[in-house]
Amino acid sequence: MEIQVGKPDITTNLQVQNNKKMWEADSIAIIGASNDPLRIGGRPISYMLQRNYAGRIYPVNPKQETVQGLKAYPDVDSLPETPEIAIIAVSSRMVIKAVEDLGKRGTRLAVILSAGFSEVGEEGRLMQEALIATAKKYGIRVLGPNTLGFYDDRQGLFSTFSSAFELYWPLPGSIAIASQSGAFALHIFCSARNRGIGIPLCVTTGNEADINVADAMIDMVLDPQIQVIGVYLEGLSNADKFIEALRLAKQYRKPVVVMKAGRSEIGQMAAQSHTASIAGDDAVFNAVLEEYAAVRAYSPDEFLDIAYMATKKIYPENNALGVITVSGGAGILISDAAEDLNLPMPELEQNAQASLKEALSFAAVKNPVDCTAQVINQPELADQFLSTMLDTQQYPSILAFFAHAAGTASIEAKLRPELKKAVDKHPDHLFALSIIAEKDTIARYEADGFSVFEDPIRATKAIHHMGVLGTAFARPDALIPFEKKTVAALASTPDEAQAKLILEEAGLQVIPEGIAHDAAEAARLADKFGFPVVMKILSPDIKHKSEIGGVILNVSSIAEVHESYALLLQRAAEKAPSANITGILVAKQVNNAVECIMGVKNDPVFGPVAMFGLGGIHVEVLKDVVLHRCPFSPETARKLILSIRSAAILQGVRGKPAVDIDGLAEQLSRLSVFAAQTQEQIQSVEVNPILAVPGVKGCYIADALIEV
Amino acid sequence: MEIQVGKPDITTNLQVQNNKKMWEADSIAIIGASNDPLRIGGRPISYMLQRNYAGRIYPVNPKQETVQGLKAYPDVDSLPETPEIAIIAVSSRMVIKAVEDLGKRGTRLAVILSAGFSEVGEEGRLMQEALIATAKKYGIRVLGPNTLGFYDDRQGLFSTFSSAFELYWPLPGSIAIASQSGAFALHIFCSARNRGIGIPLCVTTGNEADINVADAMIDMVLDPQIQVIGVYLEGLSNADKFIEALRLAKQYRKPVVVMKAGRSEIGQMAAQSHTASIAGDDAVFNAVLEEYAAVRAYSPDEFLDIAYMATKKIYPENNALGVITVSGGAGILISDAAEDLNLPMPELEQNAQASLKEALSFAAVKNPVDCTAQVINQPELADQFLSTMLDTQQYPSILAFFAHAAGTASIEAKLRPELKKAVDKHPDHLFALSIIAEKDTIARYEADGFSVFEDPIRATKAIHHMGVLGTAFARPDALIPFEKKTVAALASTPDEAQAKLILEEAGLQVIPEGIAHDAAEAARLADKFGFPVVMKILSPDIKHKSEIGGVILNVSSIAEVHESYALLLQRAAEKAPSANITGILVAKQVNNAVECIMGVKNDPVFGPVAMFGLGGIHVEVLKDVVLHRCPFSPETARKLILSIRSAAILQGVRGKPAVDIDGLAEQLSRLSVFAAQTQEQIQSVEVNPILAVPGVKGCYIADALIEV
Repeated sequence: MEIQVGKPDITTNLQVQNNKKMWEADSIAIIGASNDPLRIGGRPISYMLQRNYAGRIYPVNPKQETVQGLKAYPDVDSLPETPEIAIIAVSSRMVIKAVEDLGKRGTRLAVILSAGFSEVGEEGRLMQEALIATAKKYGIRVLGPNTLGFYDDRQGLFSTFSSAFELYWPLPGSIAIASQSGAFALHIFCSARNRGIGIPLCVTTGNEADINVADAMIDMVLDPQIQVIGVYLEGLSNADKFIEALRLAKQYRKPVVVMKAGRSEIGQMAAQSHTASIAGDDAVFNAVLEEYAAVRAYSPDEFLDIAYMATKKIYPENNALGVITVSGGAGILISDAAEDLNLPMPELEQNAQASLKEALSFAAVKNPVDCTAQVINQPELADQFLSTMLDTQQYPSILAFFAHAAGTASIEAKLRPELKKAVDKHPDHLFALSIIAEKDTIARYEADGFSVFEDPIRATKAIHHMGVLGTAFARPDALIPFEKKTVAALASTPDEAQAKLILEEAGLQVIPEGIAHDAAEAARLADKFGFPVVMKILSPDIKHKSEIGGVILNVSSIAEVHESYALLLQRAAEKAPSANITGILVAKQVNNAVECIMGVKNDPVFGPVAMFGLGGIHVEVLKDVVLHRCPFSPETARKLILSIRSAAILQGVRGKPAVDIDGLAEQLSRLSVFAAQTQEQIQSVEVNPILAVPGVKGCYIADALIEV
Repeated sequence: MEIQVGKPDITTNLQVQNNKKMWEADSIAIIGASNDPLRIGGRPISYMLQRNYAGRIYPVNPKQETVQGLKAYPDVDSLPETPEIAIIAVSSRMVIKAVEDLGKRGTRLAVILSAGFSEVGEEGRLMQEALIATAKKYGIRVLGPNTLGFYDDRQGLFSTFSSAFELYWPLPGSIAIASQSGAFALHIFCSARNRGIGIPLCVTTGNEADINVADAMIDMVLDPQIQVIGVYLEGLSNADKFIEALRLAKQYRKPVVVMKAGRSEIGQMAAQSHTASIAGDDAVFNAVLEEYAAVRAYSPDEFLDIAYMATKKIYPENNALGVITVSGGAGILISDAAEDLNLPMPELEQNAQASLKEALSFAAVKNPVDCTAQVINQPELADQFLSTMLDTQQYPSILAFFAHAAGTASIEAKLRPELKKAVDKHPDHLFALSIIAEKDTIARYEADGFSVFEDPIRATKAIHHMGVLGTAFARPDALIPFEKKTVAALASTPDEAQAKLILEEAGLQVIPEGIAHDAAEAARLADKFGFPVVMKILSPDIKHKSEIGGVILNVSSIAEVHESYALLLQRAAEKAPSANITGILVAKQVNNAVECIMGVKNDPVFGPVAMFGLGGIHVEVLKDVVLHRCPFSPETARKLILSIRSAAILQGVRGKPAVDIDGLAEQLSRLSVFAAQTQEQIQSVEVNPILAVPGVKGCYIADALIEV
């Protein structure tokens, strides 16, 4: 994967000539058009007629004179003009012919609703390949096959046979959805519509024989009316394109909200290597999202909560929450949730507290601020309290809990204008309102600038995500430039000493050590490093040294070096008589260290990925690791290291001083650069442990394994 | 707290004579009645008139002839009969007089809506005390003061001034709410009503001067029309009563769903003792809920999801989920969520898979079962697929994801009867349906036996909670009988050796050790235990032995015992010359052990609580501990021990064998019994560490601290 900087390469997306978007068309043909508005070939026509599609609709059906009141044509050749887009709803065996006919006429996009391709086995897969070969020949792009299609309600263009539109039409809005599942995308659409949230554009990609979700995402980023991009994924056919879409979205300050299915299954199928089995590919995927301005949702409700609030385009970089409430209980519940999310709720400044107390002596004024039901008798308190809180500049985000009260007509009439005053004075702030009300009432509060939620905890979580996005938008690209390199003389898997040498050449700090070929040399090395030292048998034929007694710790004198040297050779001769002994490794012994693990691994989807964690049970049992694509800077590495759950151990617990976290960060960054440089040569590197002593500068690789 | 077994003591609850419930009344007076239906003294009358309350309403107001069309009375004395319940809505200074007047006439319950009591400071607190003294004198029960009151819509009885009823009236149902927050309870009511969920009874307890949430809970358990009890808590004024309510609810198989505010605050104010600072009181509260059939919700939506599904009265003891879907993507998302929740989704039996494949060759049949959109063309597949799954007896719970399709009129007409067939054949199973539909459509599916959710992940979580409840209902009471005991001669905090002796007498297993008063005795002890041994200085005056070199490990021979004995005395003489040395502790040294921590502590709210965790960072950094009230059996202890996140370390990691978990459980149970027996004498016991060696039977207390 190449690192791209600067303006996007527009040729990689679906934008077509004349500044027209892929989904835009003045004319559309339906191959296999049906008179029955409930059939696959009938629904798109019926929907477009109902939504007053302004372009020209050309039903193609050799057996009909008219279709749903429109003139029908026997074949593609007889159409009076080249349709910009064609919907194909004929049986799978007739699809290739249709694509060829359309391609010859110069149609831009074929939306192939027909199923029976790669999803049904080998024969279908071959037919899909032939289909794509035909499409490529004529330069016609393909959505599908086996897709539920797309809709763009801004044009009234419905290239889909979903039955969802029997229930609802889309509302105007700025959220678009790109999805690998048709049924699920339309479920989200309906759920959004039910809540009054508009999704004017939705693309479902079916078998992704040509256009994939990432293509659709890029198109949505470049669509000026779209502000938030919702994505549903099951797998990635093109990770580079997906990364490009994320990068572009971040550049355009458009948040991406992702649902991805298959965490559990992928977990089971995780690769064998240590690093991968610890984390699972799903963790790599999350690490990629965190690099960009993308957040992951784990349920449809969470997905919509985030997307809905994101349409406000307010993403606080340093988020903090101010809460105003009519219920002390709700205020405490919100505080609990905010603490769980690490969303700060700083105490209101003293002056402001005093001013609120003056206005209402029995109010709680610290934050959460409880203006009590008194705000219903004195609605002007709403503006006064909110404005006082906002004027302190402490709270980029505000959550107001007014329960059912704000939903009743009599109270809304008095309260809403007061709330609006405060909002209007601070258009750069995020305002959420937790109330129960009818849809019309909610719409009025929304028009005033509030994001409205019934559940205050869901509101709190959405506010939290806006802060995550704000931080992400502000963060410079994490990946740094690098040059490819080749590690010389690296034929097979290197032994421990060789692996350490390679890492040392890459700028990493290995524990002082040397290979001795006689006891005197061992003694010289030990004297050079200082006592105590560790002595280990070195042999490409002995994988598990400690099992044959091949590691001796705490060697504390010249005499003990001589003894240990002889002992190691003796043990090797006894326990592994056929092993080729290449020497005795003498290494400085580091006591009282915190053991850390660093690793890099070529992820099959996302390329080199680095891992950091604490040694022992932290990695193996608790899976407390952090991942990031390579290569990255020491600053990024530092943030990663401090983001593990047990970071307190590195920062010093029980009165111990911190370890050299900057040193660890430097090492991790260098390892990430090395991984990127050598990704075509080296499959994985595991540094386990790297030792960092509390209160001591520096950290040292004590063991390393490189897989080629 | 006494352990209660068998039938509840009915006299402790609010049930009154003639089998009438506390909230039931044929006559009700409103002291401070108002003509204005929007005022505190006017709303209850207005609501009861609108809801056709069948009893007699007596407005009391000396200035009015009539109130809202009803004959008004100048005072309590002039009422034509004794009102069973009275609502008091006069200024705080007039409340005591009103209670006295009512008490004299024999009114049963006063609902004091008036504020201005303990919530406003010392003067109010004293007035509240006087109020309660008056009430006690006449035997009149009090709800409040400073309460939003209660409603029981089954009678049309509205003893509340909440404005929520401007928006909605309650629906029939079997959920009741007992809440310490009025505003929050009514928020929940409105949110439920908005979803079509009925809450016919709601009691808010205000200042809890007399009736508290636990009283209300007990009343709800004994109310035959109530099936699910929702509770909102901020604190507990009477933990014994709360436990009694939980115990009674479990006995009656009525689930309790709890929201409790103040996790973060309580965390900050956690007690100083080690055990408490690790866990926080909130963890003790959760441990108490887990003892009974109570689940905790962390947001209003989660609260309602659980309560709503619980009204079905189906709580699978060994829950497992079968999923049928029209969207492969949704199926995978549900599987992911189920795995997160440890909710099993076993693969469908092979025969059943074959049968489904025969019916629909391209269906996915393992579980999740994907019957694809084909079910819309062939609705009989719904019954066929579901029945095949159910007949295997693999799935006590079923989640069917039919997206928006099942919500459209044309599809509902064909699909719903097919689904109903399957449900009707299995009335003991839990059926959830994830669809998008209008409220009327949802109501029809609900009438057929489905719990209906828009979000399939929320449905999955609710199903998970039904299993948690099922397991809880099936579990026998965890607390076991015990007799109080007194530890003889326990004047002040005992030293390590004394603490261990006390625990040994309580049946716990202490590491073999003895006190030597000369080197020869030390040598005899060492010889008896076997080498190596640990030797420690013993002195009530030396708290931190290791700081003065007062602990010597790895003493491996008789000669070394003599050397170490002298060395310890020498160090004590040098570093702590004034200390009274009571001997030298000689103990067997246990190597390669897993270090565990056990503790018991008198919780100020819930009495003796036991804690178990792994030593070191597990407790201090990761807070991976489990808590349970004392005393409990070894079986319970075993379950607790295996429920820590890092239980894998006890069960054996990296090829190591397991430690003696039964042995640990036995010790933990004995410690819990000891804590219960001695709770009036001993404040806390901390056993840190207790050592368990992988592959070795037994576990041994290596150090212990008892606080009196």
